[in-house]
Amino acid sequence: MTVDTKAPMFERVALVGIGLIGSSLARVIRREGLAREIVVSTRRAETLARARELGLGDAYVQDAGEAVEGADLVIVSVPVGSSGDVAAAIGPHLAPGAIISDVGSVKADVVRQMGAHLPPTVHFVPAHPVAGTEHSGPDAGFAELFENRWCIVTPPAGADEGAVEKLVAFWRACGSKVETMTPEHHDMVLAITSHIPHLIAYNIVGTAADLETVTASEVIKFSAGGFRDFTRIAASDPTMWRDVFLHNKDAVLEMLGRFIEDLFVLQRAIRFGDGDTLFQHFTETRAIRRGILDIGQDTAAPDFGRGPKKS
Amino acid sequence: MTVDTKAPMFERVALVGIGLIGSSLARVIRREGLAREIVVSTRRAETLARARELGLGDAYVQDAGEAVEGADLVIVSVPVGSSGDVAAAIGPHLAPGAIISDVGSVKADVVRQMGAHLPPTVHFVPAHPVAGTEHSGPDAGFAELFENRWCIVTPPAGADEGAVEKLVAFWRACGSKVETMTPEHHDMVLAITSHIPHLIAYNIVGTAADLETVTASEVIKFSAGGFRDFTRIAASDPTMWRDVFLHNKDAVLEMLGRFIEDLFVLQRAIRFGDGDTLFQHFTETRAIRRGILDIGQDTAAPDFGRGPKKS
Repeated sequence: MTVDTKAPMFERVALVGIGLIGSSLARVIRREGLAREIVVSTRRAETLARARELGLGDAYVQDAGEAVEGADLVIVSVPVGSSGDVAAAIGPHLAPGAIISDVGSVKADVVRQMGAHLPPTVHFVPAHPVAGTEHSGPDAGFAELFENRWCIVTPPAGADEGAVEKLVAFWRACGSKVETMTPEHHDMVLAITSHIPHLIAYNIVGTAADLETVTASEVIKFSAGGFRDFTRIAASDPTMWRDVFLHNKDAVLEMLGRFIEDLFVLQRAIRFGDGDTLFQHFTETRAIRRGILDIGQDTAAPDFGRGPKKS
Repeated sequence: MTVDTKAPMFERVALVGIGLIGSSLARVIRREGLAREIVVSTRRAETLARARELGLGDAYVQDAGEAVEGADLVIVSVPVGSSGDVAAAIGPHLAPGAIISDVGSVKADVVRQMGAHLPPTVHFVPAHPVAGTEHSGPDAGFAELFENRWCIVTPPAGADEGAVEKLVAFWRACGSKVETMTPEHHDMVLAITSHIPHLIAYNIVGTAADLETVTASEVIKFSAGGFRDFTRIAASDPTMWRDVFLHNKDAVLEMLGRFIEDLFVLQRAIRFGDGDTLFQHFTETRAIRRGILDIGQDTAAPDFGRGPKKS
């Protein structure tokens, strides 16, 4: 068999939602020639017009149902609280044999929400690229977003193997490394690696903003001592994050409970001057950082390499 | 009057402690010609030998008392829990009229610890450069560390104005912006902008390491969703941070109490599905981030500019 290296993986990809993730997908699909045609769809007319100005697709359709007609791959990239509505809107219009996926940061609830509206003639393979920045919208995307980042694919029981393999190949072609797990396990892993970090970052920025004894201007000025890192995370899209917490409630509350318990141990050690407990705790956490650097999931440059460089 | 632009600000600077901050000071003092002679002192023989290999000073003395003899500026850069001992060791050897300062992240307690051992013939002007990275030791320092960062000077009541002005001029020459405040106010400001961020970063990394349902390898792999930012902070020097929490206990417990109260509000909102509270909270925190970017205290590059660049 002759392999045509120019043949795109998909004939028509419909991207429903064109924010940071959707627009990054549009760019990498184009760059890598992964689809013959890219249909861009988003509910807000202004966002769709902006996507057109940016030249992100080949066709621009406000109605999601219309957008997915004839597509052999549909990727829904909307806040997870909207995924059920989107599935209901596109369900009747999906082509038999199409692969339907998403990029939501929550999986079990999204599987339930979307699964209820999708016909048995399509292949539903949810996924979550663990990649992002604090910026939002079609201007914020870039083709390199997924490079060297993990994408977690969570196929439902009995999913078509060919469809799963094709979606995995698609994400690898976007630059991602791919791992497969159950939606439930995904939600536990992400609760601790992403959702709780965002919650406590939002929280400390709120605490700092509400102080009477320290002014906002002082908080801003002297933020280089650690606080500024949290403000970057707390600048992420509020709608997306509201939905994450509402739709991954059980795993988030479980992990948050543990976080608070552990915090009380440190609080007590501070109150009673127990330096050994603090020192031991502060030493053990270094191994995790080393692991992250060892597998190339962060830069080893001091202070993330920002600011004046070492001479 | 002819101004000799080559005349160094100080004749002899003694640096007691040669870690990240001390060694960065050595480098910037040399680069800017701020002292005719730099005496480097540290308790551990190996660290002193390393400082000598790096050529950080003009003289290398293990005994702190001996090191400060004849110095007109002494900067103590040790974990704050050791500052009293260092002051006791150097007190009898200080030259009359010398300026004694430190770089500790805690001020009120350090003022008490050191003040008790310093003779009335010297000028004690504590300071805190709000700058650092997650790395430690004499190899980690660099001359640009203080550029565009704030240094907080906390002169005691009745401090000699000339000495305060000279220390302020010194820090400006090191690249810092300088602000003056009381030790007590400093400790409140830093509790929220630095100490609590470090405590909760250490804490979440510990919580993640102790899970039964999620492996350390998964935490490491999928850390790009937010967690990895916390691991950088939690890689900071354990001795330094143990001492910070033990010696800024009251301000840390006060700020931690507020942080936990606020966290319970978010926890409750998640439990009861109160999306409006979450959304409102997540929106309000963006203003602080904008303030930090506006005054140039962080990079606006997405994701701190790390990883693959936008094309």
